Amino acid sequence: MDLVDCYQKVRARTEWICSPLQTEDYVVQPVEDVSPPKWHLGHTTWFFETFILKPYFAAYQEFDPNYNYVFNSYYETVGNRVIRTDRGNLSRPTVIDIYSYRKYVDDAMYHFLRGELPAEIEELMQLGFNHEEQHQELLFTDIKYILGHNPLFPAYKKDHEAPHVHEHTSSAFINMDEGIYEIGFEGEGFSFDNELNRHKVYLNAYQISPALVTNGEYLEFINAGGYQDFRHWHAEGWAWVNTHKVEAPMYWYLIDGNWHHYTLNGLEPLDLKAPVNHISYFEAYAYADWKQCRLPTEFEWEAASAKFNWGSRWEWTESSYLPYPGFAKAPGAIGEYNGKFMVNQKVLRGASEVTSPGHSRATYRNFFQTHLRWQYTGIRLAK
Amino acid sequence: MDLVDCYQKVRARTEWICSPLQTEDYVVQPVEDVSPPKWHLGHTTWFFETFILKPYFAAYQEFDPNYNYVFNSYYETVGNRVIRTDRGNLSRPTVIDIYSYRKYVDDAMYHFLRGELPAEIEELMQLGFNHEEQHQELLFTDIKYILGHNPLFPAYKKDHEAPHVHEHTSSAFINMDEGIYEIGFEGEGFSFDNELNRHKVYLNAYQISPALVTNGEYLEFINAGGYQDFRHWHAEGWAWVNTHKVEAPMYWYLIDGNWHHYTLNGLEPLDLKAPVNHISYFEAYAYADWKQCRLPTEFEWEAASAKFNWGSRWEWTESSYLPYPGFAKAPGAIGEYNGKFMVNQKVLRGASEVTSPGHSRATYRNFFQTHLRWQYTGIRLAK
Amino acid sequence: MDLVDCYQKVRARTEWICSPLQTEDYVVQPVEDVSPPKWHLGHTTWFFETFILKPYFAAYQEFDPNYNYVFNSYYETVGNRVIRTDRGNLSRPTVIDIYSYRKYVDDAMYHFLRGELPAEIEELMQLGFNHEEQHQELLFTDIKYILGHNPLFPAYKKDHEAPHVHEHTSSAFINMDEGIYEIGFEGEGFSFDNELNRHKVYLNAYQISPALVTNGEYLEFINAGGYQDFRHWHAEGWAWVNTHKVEAPMYWYLIDGNWHHYTLNGLEPLDLKAPVNHISYFEAYAYADWKQCRLPTEFEWEAASAKFNWGSRWEWTESSYLPYPGFAKAPGAIGEYNGKFMVNQKVLRGASEVTSPGHSRATYRNFFQTHLRWQYTGIRLAK
Amino acid sequence: MDLVDCYQKVRARTEWICSPLQTEDYVVQPVEDVSPPKWHLGHTTWFFETFILKPYFAAYQEFDPNYNYVFNSYYETVGNRVIRTDRGNLSRPTVIDIYSYRKYVDDAMYHFLRGELPAEIEELMQLGFNHEEQHQELLFTDIKYILGHNPLFPAYKKDHEAPHVHEHTSSAFINMDEGIYEIGFEGEGFSFDNELNRHKVYLNAYQISPALVTNGEYLEFINAGGYQDFRHWHAEGWAWVNTHKVEAPMYWYLIDGNWHHYTLNGLEPLDLKAPVNHISYFEAYAYADWKQCRLPTEFEWEAASAKFNWGSRWEWTESSYLPYPGFAKAPGAIGEYNGKFMVNQKVLRGASEVTSPGHSRATYRNFFQTHLRWQYTGIRLAK
Repeated sequence: MDLVDCYQKVRARTEWICSPLQTEDYVVQPVEDVSPPKWHLGHTTWFFETFILKPYFAAYQEFDPNYNYVFNSYYETVGNRVIRTDRGNLSRPTVIDIYSYRKYVDDAMYHFLRGELPAEIEELMQLGFNHEEQHQELLFTDIKYILGHNPLFPAYKKDHEAPHVHEHTSSAFINMDEGIYEIGFEGEGFSFDNELNRHKVYLNAYQISPALVTNGEYLEFINAGGYQDFRHWHAEGWAWVNTHKVEAPMYWYLIDGNWHHYTLNGLEPLDLKAPVNHISYFEAYAYADWKQCRLPTEFEWEAASAKFNWGSRWEWTESSYLPYPGFAKAPGAIGEYNGKFMVNQKVLRGASEVTSPGHSRATYRNFFQTHLRWQYTGIRLAK
Repeated sequence: MDLVDCYQKVRARTEWICSPLQTEDYVVQPVEDVSPPKWHLGHTTWFFETFILKPYFAAYQEFDPNYNYVFNSYYETVGNRVIRTDRGNLSRPTVIDIYSYRKYVDDAMYHFLRGELPAEIEELMQLGFNHEEQHQELLFTDIKYILGHNPLFPAYKKDHEAPHVHEHTSSAFINMDEGIYEIGFEGEGFSFDNELNRHKVYLNAYQISPALVTNGEYLEFINAGGYQDFRHWHAEGWAWVNTHKVEAPMYWYLIDGNWHHYTLNGLEPLDLKAPVNHISYFEAYAYADWKQCRLPTEFEWEAASAKFNWGSRWEWTESSYLPYPGFAKAPGAIGEYNGKFMVNQKVLRGASEVTSPGHSRATYRNFFQTHLRWQYTGIRLAK
Repeated sequence: MDLVDCYQKVRARTEWICSPLQTEDYVVQPVEDVSPPKWHLGHTTWFFETFILKPYFAAYQEFDPNYNYVFNSYYETVGNRVIRTDRGNLSRPTVIDIYSYRKYVDDAMYHFLRGELPAEIEELMQLGFNHEEQHQELLFTDIKYILGHNPLFPAYKKDHEAPHVHEHTSSAFINMDEGIYEIGFEGEGFSFDNELNRHKVYLNAYQISPALVTNGEYLEFINAGGYQDFRHWHAEGWAWVNTHKVEAPMYWYLIDGNWHHYTLNGLEPLDLKAPVNHISYFEAYAYADWKQCRLPTEFEWEAASAKFNWGSRWEWTESSYLPYPGFAKAPGAIGEYNGKFMVNQKVLRGASEVTSPGHSRATYRNFFQTHLRWQYTGIRLAK
Repeated sequence: MDLVDCYQKVRARTEWICSPLQTEDYVVQPVEDVSPPKWHLGHTTWFFETFILKPYFAAYQEFDPNYNYVFNSYYETVGNRVIRTDRGNLSRPTVIDIYSYRKYVDDAMYHFLRGELPAEIEELMQLGFNHEEQHQELLFTDIKYILGHNPLFPAYKKDHEAPHVHEHTSSAFINMDEGIYEIGFEGEGFSFDNELNRHKVYLNAYQISPALVTNGEYLEFINAGGYQDFRHWHAEGWAWVNTHKVEAPMYWYLIDGNWHHYTLNGLEPLDLKAPVNHISYFEAYAYADWKQCRLPTEFEWEAASAKFNWGSRWEWTESSYLPYPGFAKAPGAIGEYNGKFMVNQKVLRGASEVTSPGHSRATYRNFFQTHLRWQYTGIRLAK
């Protein structure tokens, strides 16, 4: 792997994603879970500064000691962090300041990477690339939230095109046999610590759909009163629906009797054939219950994943986000990456149309809280 | 099974538990999760009235139609329910009224049970007995909360004696082999729907402790600064510790430099040899992490359960509360019993010293949210 | 004044008010502003123990040192206080305990009062009598809240009779001349510190109604859409109406299309001729605005008070609760009585049908926050 | 008055205030009470568009119908308003868009003002000028909040100079006689409706300080434990101090044992001789109580105002914000300007160093809630 080349490509793609933005779009944080784009730009830079340049590049001069405080994430071992809800209150550093910061760190990184490298660097760089790719996806989801909740509904790009995933339309479920399956990552290449270790899982016989649930199918659930019938919901999901008066997926707007949805191209009539998007786990569960089906576990998903196309939506599974047998946290701040979130979250499998190219794997474990909807999330049924 | 005899015993035990109470103790609800004892007395009665007498006993005259509203629980299909937080605001019906209600329903039940019984009654009665036994345990935990949070620290009984469980003191972990294990209930006798179906699970080799963690061992964690070191905690657990300024298990009080704990006998010096009690999942996890161990999964627990004594504490497992393969909800209100809680909760296994006699099984799945501590909860380590 | 006789009468009346209660009614606290009746019984006793017996009666032995903590009110100088919201969680001391406490303190008081008394005692006793009378009124309002928010709507007494106030029914406003008026208490007898000092106020000419607004008149405001028209409301009042979905006075219930109200006699058809009751300042203001009138200031009220009957409702005034010129706090805990509440509250003048006999004066200044409704509050118009 | 000339000057000054800002500074809203500068720019423009151009200039074409929704304030009669807390989430319209909006409306206004004008226009224009001047002051306070709560503490301008007010340093109080005083606005020129009508007030003899309390004097209160002694505080103020852990005025920072304060020039050592700034009413009251003085009423302030210099700080008074005798709301949206806020707020008198030139009067009534501190607020003592 050519680290310089990879580094250059990853860093450039992040800035390419931001290129259609106005300066003001970089700044705001409408809800706690959405970060301002300029924070993503700074935070991914801070990662290389903190975990590569400072410990390994003796000649490196820190760009600005305050930035450590501003662009830190949840890494408690590295220092105080800005409370997440406060990120949207910081007008400084400006967008120009942050691009200067990126340039400064990039220059130092090129200088560093062309020198003699310690053995562990490649692994750390891989982590940095994958970390930045995760934030590339968050840039898409967060930009969509910022623009899609503005009363002017500005488009991100008028001609934005999502990568094409060939969606199955068959309604015939795939039959999977009872037995022992091997689950988890093994082999060459990068994986996150939460995909390890590869281990055996016993599965009962099950069936899984090759196709994702579409907007049209989900609309039937709405029209059948699915949001008003507690029997399909968890008690906690039912409370969520009623507290927040949820009546449709995020970004759906009923205008003069016709359903629209906000996309990166702006506000458009609802595409009935596209896979349903931006739903919570609670909604995915309720839909499946209404269809007298269920969501697959993450193990069922992985075991069958070679038999269907995936990649347009993150797919909610019935599995909670828990450590695999033998899971061990890495020492130091890097070790905080995954393990500390392994409670009260659900696993999502697959990838979405805004996942960075090359970032997805059949063993990849994404995870979110059960009420969140700003991700590109969809439904695959099992029974 | 003699239904009349069983009914009489279950109903009498509930009232025996309440017999040391003052009238005022029956009324209050200090926090949302704790119900007033008089509500438990009424709700368990409402269960038999609603699911047995009304549908099956034609001669039955409802005691008071308002009671359905007051003593309903979470059964959304049966009618409006009193918001749980409001239970502690209701001074009426009085305790005497509720004992009259119990007597009225009991008399009708005896009348009914001595007649010709439809086939499904035995199963419903079994559910009613087990339901009331669950509330017997809640009576103990809720009474403890009510008295243990009163600044006068009144004893429940001065001479209350807990059932004796012979606790292991060995520190040698039990070795368990890798392989397929059968998990879940099968056979004669009662079980809840969440214990079904019995199914195969593949487990890696593991070790599990025969002994529960003691107060003395837990105190070492406190003294080592365990509550101040974020590295041992989930992110959500760390936020919980800091928001609520948690520094010790519930009911522990540091008085003039000496640790005490409130028990049903009143405030006493901390018993260092007793199993630690009233801790949240977050604390159980952090303690295990600090000991460089982990909590067992519910499958590991069940597979090894014949090799150690259990029953003094509900034991937190690493498993989330999820449906077993093939789990199906019963139709109607009864079906709301378990399935609707299968999200964002952890499984506890075993039983506690306040669990009703005969109510426990190795396949029993109890469940609570990760921050709750008013149950008799403890820690068994695995690795 | 015969202190023993007065003491006996005041103390007996408090217990007479509680005599129709069930034990359970003494215990609950449905909202923060409402205290459990048993707390009032204990707190008024604590007042005499703390401010008379302990400092002045050398032979006195404290009943129970914990009671100081439990029955303290807002007197910060005397020690830690129970957070007000927690009062309803305390099942102990029991009602019987508290009556024992009353008896114990009363016995000591009689012993003390029959001895040689220091000069300042009479003034302190007067304060204690008036303090207990205030709590007698709070007992009525709090009991009404507890029973009137119970789904069974139990009556306090089936034959409870309110003291009769002859209400004016004339619609002709009283004309008052421009000029200097003297406001505030002067002369013999008891007054609170907030009624001092008597001072001059200049008033423009004004008109004031001899009659209180009736339920029937207020119903016209409701039927005219008054609760839906922001123009009549303060911005803060409008937010309050919408947040709490307020549509009528407290205790009004629309049952099968007919308005009812809960009274101490139970649920009854709305009495259209009775003065409107249990409204917030926000509602009083909005009603007056809708009638193209306004509320009187407390000075206008006092200056005209000899010209109309008053005493069935506490009357909201436009005046904020502020110190009179020359107001000085008494030293020590007694000084906390009034001054610390002189911000963000409105003055109410008059008295209500549940005010203790002999407790009212034309200079009396009651005060509440603008959103509160559990008092017997009404409306007198001015222009 | 030359309306074109006045209009040009007012509009230009608003933009001059914003000229040192970075684009990002225009966007954020750190707390509900602080609006993003770009909102102020849009809202003041919306005022002229809505109240002048649309009703009076037939040729006018609305710039963008969405802007009415985005830039509306609290004027309920003109349409739906953006919830205030949401203003900081709107990245669009951009700063450039809003400057285009200003230019578009300004061009139309010049066109309109050069034509034949209806009689009421001058009064409306005066209101528009004064409204925009109020927002000029808010721009200063809000910009200060945005920059002064950024961890980088950027200066607004390195060489910002506040207008000079000659501060009195004498400690001798001014004696004012008992008697009738005339209060309120009368005569030529602009005033807000809340300053009317001029009316008689009777004042007892009082004394008022010619000097404002300085930072040095306030520091003595802090060092004497003023923030830890409940006796000086209202009950509500004491709760505020403890809930928010308040220990000093806003913008004070204790760095290495030395007090600093953030000013528009950046972070500087505390200026002990400057008048104390950015304190809540609760703090002003507590300080006065500690000094065994009190705050003046707004009537005392106005009656004595010719005898001292004022204008560097808005001065908290003891008076609540209430209507003057004969106060009447204007009809329509303009009438919502002041009356709807006349509850639970305190009157501030004078002006501050960031008040627009020519905007202040001795009869001017500013008003804020008792806990707010982002204004330039100070203390003048009375007794």
